[in-house]
Amino acid sequence: MYLCELNRQNNLLMSLLVVGTVAFDTIETAFGKVERVIGGAAQYAGYAASYFTNDINLVSIVGDDFPQGELDEMSARGMKLDGLKVVEGGKSFFWAGKYHDDMNGRDTLVTDLNVLADFDPVLPDSYKNSEYILLGNLTPDIQISVIEQLETKPKLIVLDTMNFWIDIALEPLMKAISLCDVLTINDEEARMLSGEFSLVKAAAKILDMGPSILIIKKGEHGALLFDRNNVFFGPALPLEKVVDPTGAGDCFAGGFLGHIANTGDMSFENMKRALIYGATMASFAVEDFSNHRIKAVTQEEIDQRVKRFVKLSSFSM
Amino acid sequence: MYLCELNRQNNLLMSLLVVGTVAFDTIETAFGKVERVIGGAAQYAGYAASYFTNDINLVSIVGDDFPQGELDEMSARGMKLDGLKVVEGGKSFFWAGKYHDDMNGRDTLVTDLNVLADFDPVLPDSYKNSEYILLGNLTPDIQISVIEQLETKPKLIVLDTMNFWIDIALEPLMKAISLCDVLTINDEEARMLSGEFSLVKAAAKILDMGPSILIIKKGEHGALLFDRNNVFFGPALPLEKVVDPTGAGDCFAGGFLGHIANTGDMSFENMKRALIYGATMASFAVEDFSNHRIKAVTQEEIDQRVKRFVKLSSFSM
Repeated sequence: MYLCELNRQNNLLMSLLVVGTVAFDTIETAFGKVERVIGGAAQYAGYAASYFTNDINLVSIVGDDFPQGELDEMSARGMKLDGLKVVEGGKSFFWAGKYHDDMNGRDTLVTDLNVLADFDPVLPDSYKNSEYILLGNLTPDIQISVIEQLETKPKLIVLDTMNFWIDIALEPLMKAISLCDVLTINDEEARMLSGEFSLVKAAAKILDMGPSILIIKKGEHGALLFDRNNVFFGPALPLEKVVDPTGAGDCFAGGFLGHIANTGDMSFENMKRALIYGATMASFAVEDFSNHRIKAVTQEEIDQRVKRFVKLSSFSM
Repeated sequence: MYLCELNRQNNLLMSLLVVGTVAFDTIETAFGKVERVIGGAAQYAGYAASYFTNDINLVSIVGDDFPQGELDEMSARGMKLDGLKVVEGGKSFFWAGKYHDDMNGRDTLVTDLNVLADFDPVLPDSYKNSEYILLGNLTPDIQISVIEQLETKPKLIVLDTMNFWIDIALEPLMKAISLCDVLTINDEEARMLSGEFSLVKAAAKILDMGPSILIIKKGEHGALLFDRNNVFFGPALPLEKVVDPTGAGDCFAGGFLGHIANTGDMSFENMKRALIYGATMASFAVEDFSNHRIKAVTQEEIDQRVKRFVKLSSFSM
């Protein structure tokens, strides 16, 4: 039985605050095209985390075009929506993109910020003592504002960002990074941010910027976990079916922090386990478009997939 | 103490045949440029294997411009050169290339086949009962010809190839693949050869072509080992210093087959260990230009680096 069940039974709920987009996506991959499906980092991370905790405080913004049925479903999965602003007459954030045939690159075709352009989240009082904070990829100013609204020091702040903010908002980004405990970026971004080609050197420089943990995500090539003294490599699971990589990174972050919130254990050994759970949730997310797969995972599937990770990585010298 | 020592003491030498280029390279990377340094797949693989066995039968061709001192050094490291043809008045194979800043791609600037153009290896009698065969990246016709000259069925044939032969010599390549036990290619090549995007599906199709083991090399992202029932992922070591990736794949293959030859154990568990030894030898190769680092490794450094691989990959759920 997974610890989560134990904690639920004992009412040891660890509150997890998730800030990010809830949106519509139009996506084309080598395996098909879908139009205006449900997307957004907070939505993906929320579903992934929902397998580990049912105390999720969502912070986001949508227009009144966003289907109530989807919001009801998110609520039913443990996501509190007090911090989700619905703008009357507004349109939800919309992104359209097309993936390259190898799925490792993509081109953005449309970015309609819509209601996201004026997003200035105000944390409900009930959120202000959240213990675990996941700041999805947004402007660094919003990420900082959320941290500043917290009333008690959280146990762990995980920050996600992207090359775009390194390019156009480096100063506030550096402040946001200095305030977080765990930074998640990809290998290219780690090199950009540090000016170092070697990921070992890049990690050392980035850990000097504030975080105590750095996760370098490499998509289908796995992820590296660094602290000052250790490095761990978690592979991605080779899959028969990869339909759409959208949301994989968010599900990774949701599974990662969900496991940490569920266990309350911030040791490097437990961060490794969290990374494997994150990679597990990402491996489900990519198997279908939108949230179709990540919504429908069973505890047994999670357990079995974790066993596949163990088998994939085990050797004795 | 590594098994190799044990086997050397007991004279349990396992003969390893290495076929490939011995050449000059001019190489430019973000870390510098070197002109006409020693290169070639057989040379790299031979040095990597020399840490595991001193019974290496080299098959290659050079011109009389190739320095005798280098050949003497190779001999001293256990590489028999009876199968190395020196063409009087001929010029050695020459390759010049420039790596992209991220080291993952490279552009070929010059390929002067020179004596390699007429390479048609004739195995010395003393080589014809070699037990372990490493067929470096060459025309499939040469690879097939070497296999056909063997008098006894070897214990394991490892075949390396590249996209170039998939493009221009698919038919003989398919024959060579059907004759080998272990195929080593990169992820892009696995996708080309199989027509499948998913590496799991690609591996299943490629194993249908003949080999019982497929190794998909992903450079700095590690390597995947497949048989019909198992998959193992071996990471690459995150390094402080990556100067020149040339020869990394060859050192990987040399370390891999060196360990197999040294142990005589063809189980999947031992193939995993061999892959870690291969990755270990590759991690040394990239730390300097040419063969400077791979020639100068100590047994203690190998042991320590293997321990770093164990630490890098270990987790308990």
